[in-house]
Amino acid sequence: MTDFVDVRSMVRWMLESGVERLITRMSAYVEDDFRRWETFDKTPRIASHTPYGVIELMPTSDYETYSFKYVNGHPSNPARGFQTVTAFGVLSQVHNGYPVLLAEMTLLTAMRTAATSAMAARHLARPDASRMALIGAGSQSEFQALAFRGALGIEDLAVWDTDPDAVSKLERNLAPLGFRIERAASGRDAVRGADVVTTCTADKALARVLEDAWIEPGMHLNAIGGDCPGKTELDPAILERGDVFVEYTPQTRIEGEIQQLGPDSPVTELWEVVAGRRPGRTSRDQLTIFDSVGFAIEDFSALRFLRDEVTGTSYTAALDLVAEPDDPKDLFGLVAAMAPVG
Amino acid sequence: MTDFVDVRSMVRWMLESGVERLITRMSAYVEDDFRRWETFDKTPRIASHTPYGVIELMPTSDYETYSFKYVNGHPSNPARGFQTVTAFGVLSQVHNGYPVLLAEMTLLTAMRTAATSAMAARHLARPDASRMALIGAGSQSEFQALAFRGALGIEDLAVWDTDPDAVSKLERNLAPLGFRIERAASGRDAVRGADVVTTCTADKALARVLEDAWIEPGMHLNAIGGDCPGKTELDPAILERGDVFVEYTPQTRIEGEIQQLGPDSPVTELWEVVAGRRPGRTSRDQLTIFDSVGFAIEDFSALRFLRDEVTGTSYTAALDLVAEPDDPKDLFGLVAAMAPVG
Repeated sequence: MTDFVDVRSMVRWMLESGVERLITRMSAYVEDDFRRWETFDKTPRIASHTPYGVIELMPTSDYETYSFKYVNGHPSNPARGFQTVTAFGVLSQVHNGYPVLLAEMTLLTAMRTAATSAMAARHLARPDASRMALIGAGSQSEFQALAFRGALGIEDLAVWDTDPDAVSKLERNLAPLGFRIERAASGRDAVRGADVVTTCTADKALARVLEDAWIEPGMHLNAIGGDCPGKTELDPAILERGDVFVEYTPQTRIEGEIQQLGPDSPVTELWEVVAGRRPGRTSRDQLTIFDSVGFAIEDFSALRFLRDEVTGTSYTAALDLVAEPDDPKDLFGLVAAMAPVG
Repeated sequence: MTDFVDVRSMVRWMLESGVERLITRMSAYVEDDFRRWETFDKTPRIASHTPYGVIELMPTSDYETYSFKYVNGHPSNPARGFQTVTAFGVLSQVHNGYPVLLAEMTLLTAMRTAATSAMAARHLARPDASRMALIGAGSQSEFQALAFRGALGIEDLAVWDTDPDAVSKLERNLAPLGFRIERAASGRDAVRGADVVTTCTADKALARVLEDAWIEPGMHLNAIGGDCPGKTELDPAILERGDVFVEYTPQTRIEGEIQQLGPDSPVTELWEVVAGRRPGRTSRDQLTIFDSVGFAIEDFSALRFLRDEVTGTSYTAALDLVAEPDDPKDLFGLVAAMAPVG
């Protein structure tokens, strides 16, 4: 039997464990896997693009455990009452190829993206950062806020979104959790005086939600909304001025903010920083940019964390996904074996 | 909610509908999709190889419906009590990216492989074929026998396997269904006088389960067990003498029997025959070879057939796989909404 974590169980686990605590603990799993980055089987995700959006498969393996995530990205979905991004994923045993865990990953991905941002910020943001600008108040925004409080203690947020209802929703969700939230009058207004700037907008366009003139020395930019060809958020002058950190360079060149630069623009892979091979932040005034597009190893970490947390609990149900004939050569016998006698 | 067909439901559907009837009807779906082959988004499968075996993802799409299959191949699994091949798969709507059907595919793949062989044989075997040699009596063998009876009315089988217990298992499964089964003394003995020769062995090696000298004019060879790099079944002289038909050339060059030939060896893609672009069998004495490795479009056809057959029946259960917040921008609100009041 394969363990299954459905949406309702995932919600219950998040509620009963605390989302901030889960993101913070998951962040340590992401960091562990970034540290052993070179041991993974890595491939760019396999995308099927249509005018509606994209459906992607994101596999990886550490040669003991295999994982993949199915994820869609449909910018016009919310206008029709659907989620922009939904996902589910699987962990398998490499030694026999059997799937051991199937999980909803719409919510799990929201936590893993935030957990990855938090992990990057621990290496790249000023440790005394206390104020974050949030540009974009959509599905990912609350998870980012909780991640940065868990990682750096940030409780002061300045929020900007073109949709005032989205900002109200964020206030409604986060104010009861102890955040001090300022409704900014513009993107520029939100960014002023921030230590960390998180961009998480959904528009599929070569947008500029941050202008170079707004960016102050010492800021850490956590740019997570530029994540497919033709979808960026940053004025390219920012990328030329700051130090850019990425997940997996071949994928980020195609999907990230740096698609706006030449193919040889300097980048540092974040795992090199985590593994102590290259420096992260080197001075208070350095401008650091995490050009995050999401990578399969982060989903692997999230599923690995989920498995460690929920195996043997009531958050999982048994799914009858793999045929188990008594004689492995007698698959057909499964059908005969279930036939009524006589 | 996503429809789910688990192993038990799949077995019940097969039992209550009749495996031969299902394979025959599925074969028509495979043929329909081969006829419109050019309309599909095609990519070679994405494989993660280890010394234990391989785990593969096989996606495709006709731009209305997307499918993928997860499948493993672990030759040493049966010795440890596991299936060599297990699989599951998903159908999704392209317009919003949502998965609509998740199904076990260990059994479904057994039927789709047989359905594809049957479809190929209708175009490539002599229509009056009445005797089939089955080389290999493993998991796939009974499904092949039923497929060829459905397609060509073949009821006379000559069976050879290095494992006599496997042949006994096949006799036990098929004799009650009306087949006349001859236990051959060797591969050569099985092949003599056959109209169709099906090879479905599992050994991962450059094997020769068929020698060129055994092959008679007019035979149709249905070679389905050579399906990954380093795994073949046929004496290459056979391939040079006969006309080779394949599914998707870029994949078959790597995985099929023709990995033993040069990169420009002549092949015909089966879809061209189905679509009437190129001839199939042109004479009674022609030697035809279907070098089958399995392609994602066949799984798409199998899932499409399954969906058409089981939607709205008791063979499906509702799976809570996709988060559905009331406000698509308020994913976090799902967690808050489920918190107990007070």
